[in-house]
Amino acid sequence: MNGNGPSKLVDPLEDPLPGVGTYEDFNTIDWVREKSKDRDRHREITNKSRQSTVALLHSVSDAFSGWLLMLLVGLMSGALAGGIDIAAHWLTDMKGGVCLIGFWFNHEHCCWKSNEATFQDRDRCPQWQSWAELITGTSEGAFAYIVNYLMYIFWALLFSFLAVTLVRAFAPYACGSGIPEIKTILSGFIIRGYLGKWTLIIKTITLVLAVSSGLSLGKEGPLVHVACCCANILCHLFTKYRKNEAKRREVAFTLRSINPFGNSRLVLFYVEFHAPWHLVELAPFVLLGIFGGLWGALFIRANIAWCRRRKTTRLGHYPVIEVLVVAALTALLAYPNSYTRMSGAELISELFNDCSLLDSSQLCGYKQVTDRPAGAGLYTALWQLALALVFKMMITVITFGMKVPSGLFIPSMAVGAIAGRLLGVGMEQLAYYNHDSFIFKGWCSPGADCITPGLYAMVGAAACLGGVTRMTVSLVVIMFELTGGLEYIVPLMAATMTSKWVADAFGREGIYEAHIRLNGYPFLEPKEEFEHSSLTVDVMRPKRSDPALAVLTQEGMTVGQVEALVESTHYSGFPVVVSQESQRLVGFVLRRDLLISIDNARKRQEGVVSASQVVFTEHAPSVAADAPPPLRLRGIMDLSPFTVTDHTPMDITVDIFRKLGLRQCLVTHNGRLLGIITKKDILKHMAQIANRDPDSILFN
Amino acid sequence: MNGNGPSKLVDPLEDPLPGVGTYEDFNTIDWVREKSKDRDRHREITNKSRQSTVALLHSVSDAFSGWLLMLLVGLMSGALAGGIDIAAHWLTDMKGGVCLIGFWFNHEHCCWKSNEATFQDRDRCPQWQSWAELITGTSEGAFAYIVNYLMYIFWALLFSFLAVTLVRAFAPYACGSGIPEIKTILSGFIIRGYLGKWTLIIKTITLVLAVSSGLSLGKEGPLVHVACCCANILCHLFTKYRKNEAKRREVAFTLRSINPFGNSRLVLFYVEFHAPWHLVELAPFVLLGIFGGLWGALFIRANIAWCRRRKTTRLGHYPVIEVLVVAALTALLAYPNSYTRMSGAELISELFNDCSLLDSSQLCGYKQVTDRPAGAGLYTALWQLALALVFKMMITVITFGMKVPSGLFIPSMAVGAIAGRLLGVGMEQLAYYNHDSFIFKGWCSPGADCITPGLYAMVGAAACLGGVTRMTVSLVVIMFELTGGLEYIVPLMAATMTSKWVADAFGREGIYEAHIRLNGYPFLEPKEEFEHSSLTVDVMRPKRSDPALAVLTQEGMTVGQVEALVESTHYSGFPVVVSQESQRLVGFVLRRDLLISIDNARKRQEGVVSASQVVFTEHAPSVAADAPPPLRLRGIMDLSPFTVTDHTPMDITVDIFRKLGLRQCLVTHNGRLLGIITKKDILKHMAQIANRDPDSILFN
Repeated sequence: MNGNGPSKLVDPLEDPLPGVGTYEDFNTIDWVREKSKDRDRHREITNKSRQSTVALLHSVSDAFSGWLLMLLVGLMSGALAGGIDIAAHWLTDMKGGVCLIGFWFNHEHCCWKSNEATFQDRDRCPQWQSWAELITGTSEGAFAYIVNYLMYIFWALLFSFLAVTLVRAFAPYACGSGIPEIKTILSGFIIRGYLGKWTLIIKTITLVLAVSSGLSLGKEGPLVHVACCCANILCHLFTKYRKNEAKRREVAFTLRSINPFGNSRLVLFYVEFHAPWHLVELAPFVLLGIFGGLWGALFIRANIAWCRRRKTTRLGHYPVIEVLVVAALTALLAYPNSYTRMSGAELISELFNDCSLLDSSQLCGYKQVTDRPAGAGLYTALWQLALALVFKMMITVITFGMKVPSGLFIPSMAVGAIAGRLLGVGMEQLAYYNHDSFIFKGWCSPGADCITPGLYAMVGAAACLGGVTRMTVSLVVIMFELTGGLEYIVPLMAATMTSKWVADAFGREGIYEAHIRLNGYPFLEPKEEFEHSSLTVDVMRPKRSDPALAVLTQEGMTVGQVEALVESTHYSGFPVVVSQESQRLVGFVLRRDLLISIDNARKRQEGVVSASQVVFTEHAPSVAADAPPPLRLRGIMDLSPFTVTDHTPMDITVDIFRKLGLRQCLVTHNGRLLGIITKKDILKHMAQIANRDPDSILFN
Repeated sequence: MNGNGPSKLVDPLEDPLPGVGTYEDFNTIDWVREKSKDRDRHREITNKSRQSTVALLHSVSDAFSGWLLMLLVGLMSGALAGGIDIAAHWLTDMKGGVCLIGFWFNHEHCCWKSNEATFQDRDRCPQWQSWAELITGTSEGAFAYIVNYLMYIFWALLFSFLAVTLVRAFAPYACGSGIPEIKTILSGFIIRGYLGKWTLIIKTITLVLAVSSGLSLGKEGPLVHVACCCANILCHLFTKYRKNEAKRREVAFTLRSINPFGNSRLVLFYVEFHAPWHLVELAPFVLLGIFGGLWGALFIRANIAWCRRRKTTRLGHYPVIEVLVVAALTALLAYPNSYTRMSGAELISELFNDCSLLDSSQLCGYKQVTDRPAGAGLYTALWQLALALVFKMMITVITFGMKVPSGLFIPSMAVGAIAGRLLGVGMEQLAYYNHDSFIFKGWCSPGADCITPGLYAMVGAAACLGGVTRMTVSLVVIMFELTGGLEYIVPLMAATMTSKWVADAFGREGIYEAHIRLNGYPFLEPKEEFEHSSLTVDVMRPKRSDPALAVLTQEGMTVGQVEALVESTHYSGFPVVVSQESQRLVGFVLRRDLLISIDNARKRQEGVVSASQVVFTEHAPSVAADAPPPLRLRGIMDLSPFTVTDHTPMDITVDIFRKLGLRQCLVTHNGRLLGIITKKDILKHMAQIANRDPDSILFN
């Protein structure tokens, strides 16, 4: 026991105990306190910087650490995204065959290396052999087809098995898209390890495997999770961010707006057409919006129902088998149809493209290139696309939410792009055969290429993405980034707005909010209006029939009494009042801080026993000479707890919680402490109003 | 006196008195209450909509009124902006001459009408005659020059005289750029008439006159004011917006982000070059950033010093003479130099342009077009530009803040564009004569056109605008809108960031914030960090030496006593407590509501006299049979006033005010009411910390 313990403990504020002011797992952080803490730190550095050169340098480096951090995060997550892209490309190609000059080349690189290949048959180079060719020696005939088919299924099963096993063994948090959890974490919730190094490593590896396995999932959402992991890990290099939960979240907010993956996405689906569109076409665009909205609403319902079933029934006990079954089913159904066999990104990019003169794709199987009457090739393509649409719609519902990393951008866009392309070709043929009708007259003369099916695919993709995620403006911006089609702002806006309206009619939640609610995370949706006219007194605890609120008095209680009170409840904090009779509020003490301080005092501070008085006042009360020394705890008490009156309408209280990022708020009536209201209480109350189970809110 | 008066008055909440809940001029609105009011209204409409079809239609039209309003505002302000543009163009040309085939044609239209003009000499058509030609019959010689010069000054004086006289006579609020006031109004301050119809009409007319007079001012800021006036006037068409100050501000916020003038601006300075830039060039770009920052800081200091002088000395008594003197000086100095004679927008557009083969401008006076060694013409142009730079820098300082509509975008950009072009041409010549030095080697071979002076002008303009307004990211976006130069994001970012850092070193305020402070508006800068470590108890009123806070008790006071208390103070609201001894807070009553209610009760409610008890409790106290009936005022009391404790650090309190948009907040200590803190108190305290005069905060 060291000598200066007791004197040090008199004012714990001066040198806080380790642990005091930190948070437990699955708890909500207090934004106001964290920000205030950071301002104190900044003030201290600024004041010191006037005294010496070293301190000045420290202050400058502190100011620039934010910039440096963002740079590092950008570099690291950019490098990872690039690596994932290359690896996934390679593994996806491996499902079809192997490169003889080096198995580490993907199809494209393998054929680049080949000198014999000309531009036309670059895809058919001798160096790249399909599995059938390698095993049976020929790539023709039914037997070769079956060998390739089986190898395709084999690789899909292998990749998905590896992905789900790695996730389960090393980092359970690496599954899913991660967006619902990141939204919750950014709103101020602690999930330890969710952004840790193991999650980062495993998510990077399994994302490659999951994408390569051919499952109906994308990599955009998980990449955001990867970037957030990078940011969180790099934060530990800088004191400013290491010690402050709010500050760390700011980094991730900034990350979201600068979007380190912007560049890699810009290349993805660059559209080359700049054909004008006609006002009449707004009708089919709105139709696509309606389709997107309906599909979004349906998808969310079906997916949530399926995920709930997984959570509540025996299905959830066999995640590996589930993934293997879905992967096998996907591979089995996807292989025969060329549009489902190719990866989602390839499919979208083919659907977004307009047919040029040289285009050999089936989608461009017109009888004539300028006029564009549909030929046999196009009709086959349309049938295949329609089947692909049904398949994608079904399989995505059961894929999203499995225990592998899975994003939703690519599958949603694929569904929309197929629907859009189908409608686009339909409109095109309609215009071709009816160019004299009043609808097309004047802008769609025969021989002119007036409808661009690629644009319809783009609008459809935006509409479906909008229906699923319920973003509108930011979605249109993303579509521009993806495609560079700045002149299509009106079609995109029309479709996404319609889609949002239609989908909102069936329920206002996007897929991420629905998953947040399914998992019971404490997330206060910033857009959702609180429509009910209840008062704070109706929501606070204790309820009218419950026993009174557990409070501490600022003096008169012993260490033993305080410990008994804390043990008998599970509250995470206690108000301190002047006296039990007056119930006048003095401050608020967190359970964690209280336990750590008492524990520490018992060990280190001489004479603190169960009979010692606990004192929260500024000046120590006079005690009898033979009494044990009092334990002074004013230092750990929050002297400025937030209060609202019992008559405050709940909409105002919700607003306060949202805008200030509160964790709890005390409720007073005519100046007396009456109760307490926490984020969880509010979420439970909102669940109750919406006729949902209030006990679905799990965490504090 | 109507019979149902008394019964109606028992609960004023049911049918509020006219005037209760509205605001006085130069007061701050309470965002939380206003939003809550709107939610109540919305709830009521939604509930009613389930009962009848008419109510359902009402509910739908209510939901769509926001869209309709935005559409109308967009159309109206777009039309006005177009009109202003055309009129200003015409009047500006009139300073130089007149069109013979119709005086209402401007120079360009006049020469378009002329059939004889070919493309080359379109600017010299016989239909357009300069004043000298019209008066003396010749446009050659010194005499003609002097006649033109004098006519130029005459028109400048006439236009500026009309502008300042109209502003003074009909709408004093129409002067200036309007941006500082709009920022303050958006933050929740009432300035009656600032966005009214007279301001709109007069600002539109005088903006045309001021721009045409040749004064060093732009029209972008005033156009924002015009658009906000449109929005405010059109808000009166919709109940939803008419009755709610916060809702009305939301419209103007949306307006700012959709920017109805976007289109007209897109055309303004379209850059046609897409030449790449080299990493080495970042050095001159950063140099331009430093120049922009220095000029921004200097401009703000000089302009504020000049405006303060105008406010405090006799100078402010002669606004008309001031405008005339400045206009005469501007015209006198500007005419001889062709770069100052042309309008600011024309100048910028010429400086942004790169020289093409056909370009006949003096700025393109190279000896050789491909290699670009400077010729005599270019040297003359450089001298003229240098003089124009000095002139623009000086004259803008005394022009901005005069009693005419005046924007700052164009003058700031002009200064930066001149400086940038000068540096750009300098770099170009340096590269031409030293293309073998280690700096230019490898990327700037002889014969190649490697430096684009127009890009330097663009970067310089952004840097100066950044130095003056302290926007960075939004500024870069504006530059893209203005110029379409998407590939220059890094040069623009580098220059604007440097400019902001340099300018911030001299003072963190932009020009608009500086003017807000100069005028003493109650504006809490959202970005400004509160660095000082004071507590709420140090800032609240009453101060320690002052008399206690004026409070009402919830019962026991008579109408006469309440009136006496209200009369003896100038506070805009009073806390209601349980009793003077306990000081336990019950609610808060606004002075305005209290006076209106008492006044109304005395007139309409039988038996209310000075001796009547004023009662704020829920249940009326039992009174003696012969006593006059009590006046019940619980309905006008705010039952959920915001409170903070006296120990709350001021940074948290400032945060609460900012985020919730509060007007005032009550301060408690251990559950007892201790004092009150208002936005004005906070602003005064912040002024004191910054060593400024706290009495510069004028309004509530």
